[in-house]
Amino acid sequence: MRIVIAPSGFKESLTADEVAAGIARGVRRVVPDASIATIPLVDGGEGSARALAAATGGRVVPHRVTGPVGAPVDAHFAVLGGPGPRTAVVEMAAAAGLRLVPRGARDPGLTTTYGVGELIGAALDAGVDRVLVGCGDSGTSDGGAGALRALGARLLDTTGRELAQGGAALERLDRIDASGLDPRLAKAELLVACNPFNVLCGENGVARVYGPQKGATAAQVEVLDRALCRWARVLERDLGPTGVDLRTGLGTGASGGLGAGLAAVGARLLPRFEVLLEQVDLDRLLAGADLVITAEGTIDRQTSRGKIPAEVARRAKRYGRPVLALAGTIGPDAHLVYGSGIDAFAGILPGPMPLTEAISRSEEILADGAERALRMVLLGTALTPVA
Amino acid sequence: MRIVIAPSGFKESLTADEVAAGIARGVRRVVPDASIATIPLVDGGEGSARALAAATGGRVVPHRVTGPVGAPVDAHFAVLGGPGPRTAVVEMAAAAGLRLVPRGARDPGLTTTYGVGELIGAALDAGVDRVLVGCGDSGTSDGGAGALRALGARLLDTTGRELAQGGAALERLDRIDASGLDPRLAKAELLVACNPFNVLCGENGVARVYGPQKGATAAQVEVLDRALCRWARVLERDLGPTGVDLRTGLGTGASGGLGAGLAAVGARLLPRFEVLLEQVDLDRLLAGADLVITAEGTIDRQTSRGKIPAEVARRAKRYGRPVLALAGTIGPDAHLVYGSGIDAFAGILPGPMPLTEAISRSEEILADGAERALRMVLLGTALTPVA
Repeated sequence: MRIVIAPSGFKESLTADEVAAGIARGVRRVVPDASIATIPLVDGGEGSARALAAATGGRVVPHRVTGPVGAPVDAHFAVLGGPGPRTAVVEMAAAAGLRLVPRGARDPGLTTTYGVGELIGAALDAGVDRVLVGCGDSGTSDGGAGALRALGARLLDTTGRELAQGGAALERLDRIDASGLDPRLAKAELLVACNPFNVLCGENGVARVYGPQKGATAAQVEVLDRALCRWARVLERDLGPTGVDLRTGLGTGASGGLGAGLAAVGARLLPRFEVLLEQVDLDRLLAGADLVITAEGTIDRQTSRGKIPAEVARRAKRYGRPVLALAGTIGPDAHLVYGSGIDAFAGILPGPMPLTEAISRSEEILADGAERALRMVLLGTALTPVA
Repeated sequence: MRIVIAPSGFKESLTADEVAAGIARGVRRVVPDASIATIPLVDGGEGSARALAAATGGRVVPHRVTGPVGAPVDAHFAVLGGPGPRTAVVEMAAAAGLRLVPRGARDPGLTTTYGVGELIGAALDAGVDRVLVGCGDSGTSDGGAGALRALGARLLDTTGRELAQGGAALERLDRIDASGLDPRLAKAELLVACNPFNVLCGENGVARVYGPQKGATAAQVEVLDRALCRWARVLERDLGPTGVDLRTGLGTGASGGLGAGLAAVGARLLPRFEVLLEQVDLDRLLAGADLVITAEGTIDRQTSRGKIPAEVARRAKRYGRPVLALAGTIGPDAHLVYGSGIDAFAGILPGPMPLTEAISRSEEILADGAERALRMVLLGTALTPVA
């Protein structure tokens, strides 16, 4: 039996790697001689750089940068192994993730992606041909302004002085001096793995959709939206057109608008799974699987809207492969995932318990839950109608 | 697809009937045209009389009796429908269950099965040919002394005075005057459905095994064990031998020794599932099932020691039928049930939550859990090796 285990990490509990290992442990108890391929999957957010380094036999390079509130943070990027162009993965969350913004400082008008630009610069210093920027779990909404400054752009007000950091200050942006931009940006291939549904401005823009959850008041949301629209207009005017409408193009709103900023300096914005799953050769493995097992911390109505289990199932179904999903929590409208190609899903919890206990026992609970689920599947394989 | 749903009730949450209905609801969502037989199962304890009345098209007869601490309680017995001898079911827990003993009055040396004898008398008044006494969930440890008194026996001390109620008083038992015993006991068939592992006296006797959980101190346990041994000796001397050693015979300790007391007046002590499952024609249904689904509130190391899911699985395996079990809680060493013939089991909880929430949402949680489990089984039926 060839089983492909391709899970997401469980937020605040297990990395994708740990989830894959836990499921494999449970599966082996039932089918000791199964041929198991584990492919921990990431969505570009927290943990993605480390996971892709591990999956490709690459390495993680530590690098200290300016954090989202100005204080230095110990970040990192990955240099991937394997064939093809030498590729670095810069996970924006490592330099400007929400986790790095103290709760008291959660004003999305002030936080900066400066450190993301520093990581891109460091990756270019490492001599790669391609930089893949992973979005997700962002603590910023500066449209990538900070990142561009770290890469050499100067953002000036009408008096010719540089703006303060953060998205809100972009309201006073008069012009961009791009003469000092890192010239290597023009030569290297810059890819941004983003959720294509995120756009920069307007009703579905980052300020309105993500501002409140990053700590913005209603008034701040309006200021920020106006500032980001101005940012897009000035970028297009001063850096030239990119083929993408920076205000409403797919992915321009990724990670608080980082997508728009990087697009303005030549980055291609790509649907995250197209670019991330390509690194791990997922499709070839799915095509040869007797059973595909995926997982996520929670399966609910969001899952079928572009989360990892739904993406895995969608691809597995191209090859007609059966898909089982495991989850720590089965949330509202979870049944919608049946429409994505997930044939069955199971909760892994053994009984009533608080979330804290579920998290502290998560490895054991996951392996046991995987074992139980696989036994149910095997019971099915043995099901023969009564003669 | 022919599916037999044969669950236990979930303690303090759902009756066996409700459990069967919930599972059926979940199953129908996946296989709308399945042929489903629901057989709610009982172990003789709380709810057994009502469940057997419902399962056989019989009726429940309310009857007020003396409760375990002397206060009257509204109890009931069942008169079963269906073919065969006219049978009443007396559930001892309805007259002397632990639930009827106030927490402050949990002294197992004092509580009485008097009401159980009253129920047996009422059942005989109803003109049945057979009385089936269900054990389990008992709040008494009087060796059935109270029940025999209600049926006409007099328990006397050396001065010829009647003893007080309860098991502890039996230490002062001198002789039994059985001249007033209800003469119908000699004609009717009296069966006791009991856990055969319960014996009256000694190391594995009711005082030592169940005394502490019924509220006895270590000293009370010793008094009670001595009193019950004396009770057995005097019963055998004054009522004559029964073919069963009342101190150590299988089932003599059922429901705090009620088994021993009733055996002394001619009852046959039978393994509970042999007699209870016979009433619902379980074996015939299992033999024709494509899939058997059973359930219990908790599956753990106790399950394989004579609990309903293990018994159902053991019988299903006589016919080679696959068995799936569902549980609210998967407890320690649950995997031992694989040895009983359960092929797979699933927890039904959708995520971390306190027990109170799990209980209050139990019907919905059970139906959803059954649906998920069945989808996993069906995924297995569709599993075909890659060509």
